[in-house]
Amino acid sequence: MSLRQTIGELGEFALISAITERLNNPEVPEVLVGIGDDSAVIQTQGQNVVACLDMMTQGVHFRLDWSSARDIGGKVVAANLSDIYAMGAKPTSLLVGLAMPATTEVNWVLELADGMRDEAARVGVRVVGGDVVRADSISLAVTALGDLEGRKPILRSGAQVGDVVAVAGQLGYSAAGLLMLSRGFRTPRVLVNAHRAPQPRYDLAQQALHATSMIDVSDGLVSDLDHIARASGVSININSSAFEISDDLASAAGAFNGDALEWILTGGEDHAFVATFSSVNVVPDEWLVIGTVGEGNPKVLIDDVEYLKAGWNHFS
Amino acid sequence: MSLRQTIGELGEFALISAITERLNNPEVPEVLVGIGDDSAVIQTQGQNVVACLDMMTQGVHFRLDWSSARDIGGKVVAANLSDIYAMGAKPTSLLVGLAMPATTEVNWVLELADGMRDEAARVGVRVVGGDVVRADSISLAVTALGDLEGRKPILRSGAQVGDVVAVAGQLGYSAAGLLMLSRGFRTPRVLVNAHRAPQPRYDLAQQALHATSMIDVSDGLVSDLDHIARASGVSININSSAFEISDDLASAAGAFNGDALEWILTGGEDHAFVATFSSVNVVPDEWLVIGTVGEGNPKVLIDDVEYLKAGWNHFS
Repeated sequence: MSLRQTIGELGEFALISAITERLNNPEVPEVLVGIGDDSAVIQTQGQNVVACLDMMTQGVHFRLDWSSARDIGGKVVAANLSDIYAMGAKPTSLLVGLAMPATTEVNWVLELADGMRDEAARVGVRVVGGDVVRADSISLAVTALGDLEGRKPILRSGAQVGDVVAVAGQLGYSAAGLLMLSRGFRTPRVLVNAHRAPQPRYDLAQQALHATSMIDVSDGLVSDLDHIARASGVSININSSAFEISDDLASAAGAFNGDALEWILTGGEDHAFVATFSSVNVVPDEWLVIGTVGEGNPKVLIDDVEYLKAGWNHFS
Repeated sequence: MSLRQTIGELGEFALISAITERLNNPEVPEVLVGIGDDSAVIQTQGQNVVACLDMMTQGVHFRLDWSSARDIGGKVVAANLSDIYAMGAKPTSLLVGLAMPATTEVNWVLELADGMRDEAARVGVRVVGGDVVRADSISLAVTALGDLEGRKPILRSGAQVGDVVAVAGQLGYSAAGLLMLSRGFRTPRVLVNAHRAPQPRYDLAQQALHATSMIDVSDGLVSDLDHIARASGVSININSSAFEISDDLASAAGAFNGDALEWILTGGEDHAFVATFSSVNVVPDEWLVIGTVGEGNPKVLIDDVEYLKAGWNHFS
């Protein structure tokens, strides 16, 4: 098989076979029925299944000249796994849909599979099924399945007046990295890589199983907190001085005339976790307290002032 | 909201809200957590979850000038539900991913949702989550989840030497309908509609829970039987005289110089079910016995002659 062979030349069934081989990971347990039948069958511990589906498309969520296939595969899996962890669940398996032109190189697809396999392996799961179809441009769909292991789900609607708000993981790095790439730069690596291949701190979400509400920051901190505020019927007040602006963000903001705090408040795709807790005493060690939950119409305030700037609108 | 408003004009969150309203079906039970959180939560009876993901893309699986949005929504859901039933499972829920240009009319998307909702309602389930993203052309991804209710899955690998092969549901109609459309005709309706909006006989799959193997016919009968032959390590011999050529197929074949038997043997997308049973005595009433399972290298024979014509290759 030539490295530059296209998937149209290879054919559908040989492609599926090559992807299946590439997705296999002997270090991760198999499921009851994996790739190769009409559907997969996954064992669950509890009586509830957690499931999400996220898509990413060429030119909107990724650019082939900015990100490697491996980066893109890892990123779409990370976005889905974050949604499972944000429910207080643990992922059990993934299904992937790949829509791509017949001219796509086989090697690109196999490296995409590598990225998916490796991000899944970070949490001990594998791709157990999916679909490969032809399309004019590349669209990726991932479904992640999870298990609550008998616990109740942590919803967006659980925030209570008097709770504290805390975040876990990096914020603003992906937004800053995207700005660097859009200005033609490939550095600083720590920012650009945060955009290309975010590495969510799934472990920190697992420390927050007692949170009253939780969400992963995919649209932007303010926008995602607004989802919690609306679902819970509360107002959320963020104290901007709670954030430590890292040297990475500060120097990028200086060099590009950017606003590091704005990146933190509105940048999406880092897949940090933001949650509410019943008291400051129960916030896990590695989580940063950034605000409080109050009464009033659902809204998000920064330093007591309503913040109107929305997060990422995919159709704007 | 104007009927010709585009999704770009409406915006992401208002679009999701409008789709959610349209997908709602008061006649179908809700799940524990539906649309509106990071993930959905679905109750299961058994300890096993059945899951599949199928994609359809504009220009490959559907054409906007041939199919209505409602047809397309129904078809992508039907393809996924068939995969769940082919495992001997019952569907519990659906997740949908919609990738589409910002210029797509809101009304088109809502009619797509109607088609999804109504096909799901045929089996008593609903759409419980998903994603809406921007793309250059339309790609649809659907995940169906199912429950084995304590039973073992019916796999492609279970066919035994001495079994009989039987089919349930219509074959060849979708292929004939596609030919009509490609020649510029919109009739006969029964064929064209079979291509636009297949209505799988899910009930017939549920009658076959004692089958030794089962698959839904999506690639084409011979191609899908070849999957069973390979997975089970058997040869399958089909008796072509077992098929009754309906008047619908016979007259279309006459008018278009087509071969009705070829449509039956190689046409995909009708989502008929084909299965193997341990004896002719246990084949359900509405299933048609068409062949036998024998020893030898995995292959499919028609009237004792190896049949090489493959089904649909999406990248050819």
